[in-house]
Amino acid sequence: MPETTQQVAVIGLGAMGLPMAGRLAPEFPVSAFDVAEQRREAAAAQGAVPAATPAEAAEGADVLLLAVRDQEQAEAALFGPDGAASTLPPGAAVVLTSTVGPPGARALAAALPRQRFVDAPVSGGPLRAGKGDLLIVVGAEDAALAAARPVLDRLAGTLTVIGPRPGDGQALKAINQLLAGVHIAAAAEAVALARGIGLDPSVVVEALSQGAASSFMLADRGPRMLDAYADGAEVRSRLDIFVKDMGIVTDLARDAHVPTPLAGAAQQLYLLGERAGLAAADDSSVVTVLSPKDEPSGEDRSPTA
Amino acid sequence: MPETTQQVAVIGLGAMGLPMAGRLAPEFPVSAFDVAEQRREAAAAQGAVPAATPAEAAEGADVLLLAVRDQEQAEAALFGPDGAASTLPPGAAVVLTSTVGPPGARALAAALPRQRFVDAPVSGGPLRAGKGDLLIVVGAEDAALAAARPVLDRLAGTLTVIGPRPGDGQALKAINQLLAGVHIAAAAEAVALARGIGLDPSVVVEALSQGAASSFMLADRGPRMLDAYADGAEVRSRLDIFVKDMGIVTDLARDAHVPTPLAGAAQQLYLLGERAGLAAADDSSVVTVLSPKDEPSGEDRSPTA
Repeated sequence: MPETTQQVAVIGLGAMGLPMAGRLAPEFPVSAFDVAEQRREAAAAQGAVPAATPAEAAEGADVLLLAVRDQEQAEAALFGPDGAASTLPPGAAVVLTSTVGPPGARALAAALPRQRFVDAPVSGGPLRAGKGDLLIVVGAEDAALAAARPVLDRLAGTLTVIGPRPGDGQALKAINQLLAGVHIAAAAEAVALARGIGLDPSVVVEALSQGAASSFMLADRGPRMLDAYADGAEVRSRLDIFVKDMGIVTDLARDAHVPTPLAGAAQQLYLLGERAGLAAADDSSVVTVLSPKDEPSGEDRSPTA
Repeated sequence: MPETTQQVAVIGLGAMGLPMAGRLAPEFPVSAFDVAEQRREAAAAQGAVPAATPAEAAEGADVLLLAVRDQEQAEAALFGPDGAASTLPPGAAVVLTSTVGPPGARALAAALPRQRFVDAPVSGGPLRAGKGDLLIVVGAEDAALAAARPVLDRLAGTLTVIGPRPGDGQALKAINQLLAGVHIAAAAEAVALARGIGLDPSVVVEALSQGAASSFMLADRGPRMLDAYADGAEVRSRLDIFVKDMGIVTDLARDAHVPTPLAGAAQQLYLLGERAGLAAADDSSVVTVLSPKDEPSGEDRSPTA
């Protein structure tokens, strides 16, 4: 496999797609498309060739990397007007990095019978995307994976192949998101409760980030929740991503007849956050749904006070 | 403070009290009481002097260590027939290591006005108790803490003083239990979902125990959940402890008017586990409530199949 001569198309230049395009551009000829002109220009500034449509981006591509937000955008990019499928060469590898759920990935793979489909949802965030340090979980046949491997190796810190079928990567990613989304919500409950009973939340987060109560999300989002009460947390991962992803989780669980009461509760919490105007805020801001910024102290809240 | 001449009474010789008594016995004269004769004999075998009643154990004690299950047992041990309060010297330190919630600790402290009260709930489990490697979170005034310090130092790997009032330690412990109980339940949902959709749960636990989905509980209880489907998990921490502790959490949150939907869902899950006959089983066995041992695979469960 000639590593440096593969032609790569990147469709979707958002929080993840743009740094992935920038990471690939020094090693591969990259054509890049996004619906927003500003994002296309940003990709051009990082060495990619901007394309006016998905079809133009996909022309002659050996590897098509989809980094769109959801299933609807993936279908539009591939099969909509000027869609990539109209020009994508037979035998090309299609790498789906978006989190769309197993049925979504299977549907896309089935609609592209002449291409090699690699279900490869990513996690790790924009910074790690730009450094090639993503966690990528893959469902793909060996031949498809081999065709996409040079591109994936440039992006992944860790690549785990969970199974041979499109949808297998999505399944593992969904379980990842179940845990991540529940852990963020649990950290929010912990911070909100600390505030409500008059303990210093920063002391609580610090004290509990080592032992049996620890999680990656408590250590990562806990301090950002404290920021949410100060200047506001920097947006590193939008809250509405978890509205989408907890929907994928609870759909998947329901279809498998597995109760997931905590994932369901977390889903409701992210929906409440969206309704509170926090869709585009950092996901850590969900804590303000449980404990508003201007809430009175615990002592003032008794109904008989 | 003469470290080796303090007389210590330990009341409650269960999963935590017995190894604590055994850890203290080489350094202090320890008198030990439990309602079960077998536990008193086990403490005697580790160097403690068994007492026939709480009152006998407390006679002449400088430090009384309470390691009972809950508030009801604490009240009975102190104020019931032959209770420790009838003989405990004025000025003695009372160390409450049990998790009873802030109002419980405050009530006990108020009922012992002539003693020094140290609210010091512990976590870490029996093995770490026997090694003196517990996490102890303390609410106590300086003088009370100083009186109990030699005993606490013999038991603690980490000791965090969160505030000066009895109840402050319980408050931090409750937040610890919120996170721990939710994280165990989240791990159970992850394992159950993996089984339900036909992914190997051991691969899922392994793959997700490093990144953004990681928690202490996923790495610790995840493998024990797999044991629950094989020979059954060794009982290291009883499931019904979380019925008690999530009750403390949700009471505390409700009293502070803080919504905790995930803690509430976790509480219901532990109650379901208790109803399923798992009260004395390892808490990791809660996974079998979500995904029974003999469940059919995901493909066989469609209502139209």
